[in-house]
Amino acid sequence: MTFQQARRAARMNPSIIREILKVTERPGIISLAGGLPSPDTFPVEAMRDAAERVLRDSPREALQYAASEGYGPLREWVAGHLAGQGQRVEASQVLITTGSQQGLDLVGKVLIDAGSRVAVESPTYLGALQAFAPYEPELVSVACDDDGPLPEGLDVARGARFLYALPNFQNPSGRCMSEARRAALVERALALGLPLVEDNPYGDLWFDVAPPAPLASRWSDGVVYLGSFSKVLAPGLRLGYVVAPKPLCPKLLQAKQAADLHTPSFNQRLVHEVIRDGFLQTHVPTIRQRYRAQRDAMRAALERHMPPGCHWNVPSGGMFFWLELPEGVDAMQLLPHAVERGMAFVPGAAFYADHPKPNTLRLSFVTVSPERIEQGIAMLAQALKENAL
Amino acid sequence: MTFQQARRAARMNPSIIREILKVTERPGIISLAGGLPSPDTFPVEAMRDAAERVLRDSPREALQYAASEGYGPLREWVAGHLAGQGQRVEASQVLITTGSQQGLDLVGKVLIDAGSRVAVESPTYLGALQAFAPYEPELVSVACDDDGPLPEGLDVARGARFLYALPNFQNPSGRCMSEARRAALVERALALGLPLVEDNPYGDLWFDVAPPAPLASRWSDGVVYLGSFSKVLAPGLRLGYVVAPKPLCPKLLQAKQAADLHTPSFNQRLVHEVIRDGFLQTHVPTIRQRYRAQRDAMRAALERHMPPGCHWNVPSGGMFFWLELPEGVDAMQLLPHAVERGMAFVPGAAFYADHPKPNTLRLSFVTVSPERIEQGIAMLAQALKENAL
Repeated sequence: MTFQQARRAARMNPSIIREILKVTERPGIISLAGGLPSPDTFPVEAMRDAAERVLRDSPREALQYAASEGYGPLREWVAGHLAGQGQRVEASQVLITTGSQQGLDLVGKVLIDAGSRVAVESPTYLGALQAFAPYEPELVSVACDDDGPLPEGLDVARGARFLYALPNFQNPSGRCMSEARRAALVERALALGLPLVEDNPYGDLWFDVAPPAPLASRWSDGVVYLGSFSKVLAPGLRLGYVVAPKPLCPKLLQAKQAADLHTPSFNQRLVHEVIRDGFLQTHVPTIRQRYRAQRDAMRAALERHMPPGCHWNVPSGGMFFWLELPEGVDAMQLLPHAVERGMAFVPGAAFYADHPKPNTLRLSFVTVSPERIEQGIAMLAQALKENAL
Repeated sequence: MTFQQARRAARMNPSIIREILKVTERPGIISLAGGLPSPDTFPVEAMRDAAERVLRDSPREALQYAASEGYGPLREWVAGHLAGQGQRVEASQVLITTGSQQGLDLVGKVLIDAGSRVAVESPTYLGALQAFAPYEPELVSVACDDDGPLPEGLDVARGARFLYALPNFQNPSGRCMSEARRAALVERALALGLPLVEDNPYGDLWFDVAPPAPLASRWSDGVVYLGSFSKVLAPGLRLGYVVAPKPLCPKLLQAKQAADLHTPSFNQRLVHEVIRDGFLQTHVPTIRQRYRAQRDAMRAALERHMPPGCHWNVPSGGMFFWLELPEGVDAMQLLPHAVERGMAFVPGAAFYADHPKPNTLRLSFVTVSPERIEQGIAMLAQALKENAL
């Protein structure tokens, strides 16, 4: 080959989930594997009206190059939104990104050297592992329970560049950190001088009660916070944001500029036009209601069908159940049998930086109707009983 | 500071141009400094109609997550477009990127190790220097004349990961490589085993005759080719593409996925909807005509006003004149005097990887009317005569 690749290229890999999804994209299959929000929640009418207004009122600005920081009014909106959940940030600290995946890439670019220790939860979000990998970190998993990372577990992360944490309805585990755990975690991180990167794509999707205030509200100098419009509006617009302590902002901005100059101006103006007058206050509750019903359906189906020895959390928000099969069962080996029966899931091993638990799997409840959830879980239970127990 | 930054962060810098533009953003100033296309060329009506159709006919797909490779029909379109300029590529080799700036970032990520030699033209595109910088290359400038890089100059690039070249109406110099130079350059690169990264944002903006076929059409295994919709449609949608030899495609795709999952689905469908039926065949000629008139105005103004000892090319396409002031004049020192008189330009030193020529500057002719171009150049000449000669 003519081209010599960079060493880091060896650390990049095709997404295992992507590969799995390819196999499972059989027509008619009940896929509980995806990580997509339900397209039924996309506010198409509002988007259409907003697109028309933006292209009528400010077409030249919406279609022209723009500032790398992002569209001013949208940055202001984000600062206001975060104030509502207890974070005091200035709009100047908000960097609009091309989805929050780009936020993870920029964080990696600015903070990770080859060989740097980076601590992650166990399990953790696969997209973050992919974003960090090209920067060649040495990943360390922090021990977790149903409440998130154990504060005493942070000791293995001593000297790490940061701990990457998803306190709200984590992908994949669905868990949400309690108030007490957040306080203890931040206290321990502060004591260790361990900065945090807090990822919060699902925080608004709570079913009963809003989650406790973000980690960032507890340690303003030590937390980089990532947010997203993908789950409350639509992911296809690729719109997220990073909020950083002021000393980090210039480097993140330079990294952003080098990465894609700026996030599409049209998309930023479009989203701002949709949300500026409080649209999310009426829209997000409709998503919550829909997802809650689907969560309930999946819970009922799991209780009805799963054989003894299986365990699962009941997520109080977000999009995912996390299932532990009986010890010794390998979810990866179970998958083809499940697909044969007509349903798909994602084996949990993909979500671990190290020491994967082969008997875990992730189930999404948001893109499939309650009836199909019931059928899908019945198929999963059947496949499990016939092939693995 | 709590956060320890990666070593590469020291290589990232604020864009000098950005800083200059801030200073020159005085109301009423005649700015020939920008690198923006003229918003008068944005096909607003066509965008509005297309946005309506996309949100009517495929809202769920346009607003949902999508494949990292890009929207299939758009990739097909790109492959067809390139065939028209003599490149034989399959749609599977086309990766849609968030502007071609992202293409540069992905190329850097996949091909540059810390300390790798990377060859660039002299001068070269500043955005590429910024995109490559975080990967810590050792940059080598290849000697150039009005026709582009000198084939014999490539010897200094021996062992480099690639030569980054802009054959068509280069930003900043405006120059276009002749047919003979392209042939000689590729021949020499082949002999040296030096891969090429060919950036072509301006190729469609020719004024009299289309430029010769791309370098990529002459060495299909050794050239990564970057294209963009920013200059022929609108940059605010951030839509570009990378076309790579097949062995490189998987790693570029993985890098893309890690960087932002995918380019906004809505933007890809919107642009495809605008261009699918041959829109560019009637639209691009209107841009050419407009820019040609502005090029002519600037040429006439330069001839009329500039004192002896100044030299410039006459670009046969693109957006820029490149001006050499008399030896000993420093364009950076001239800038405040020019701004005081009411006009702005970009000092040329910013565009060199090494050995900057302080007596050079870049002038954009596309965002300012012929009358204002005449006034701006008169001010520049005046500032030069009174302060630097």
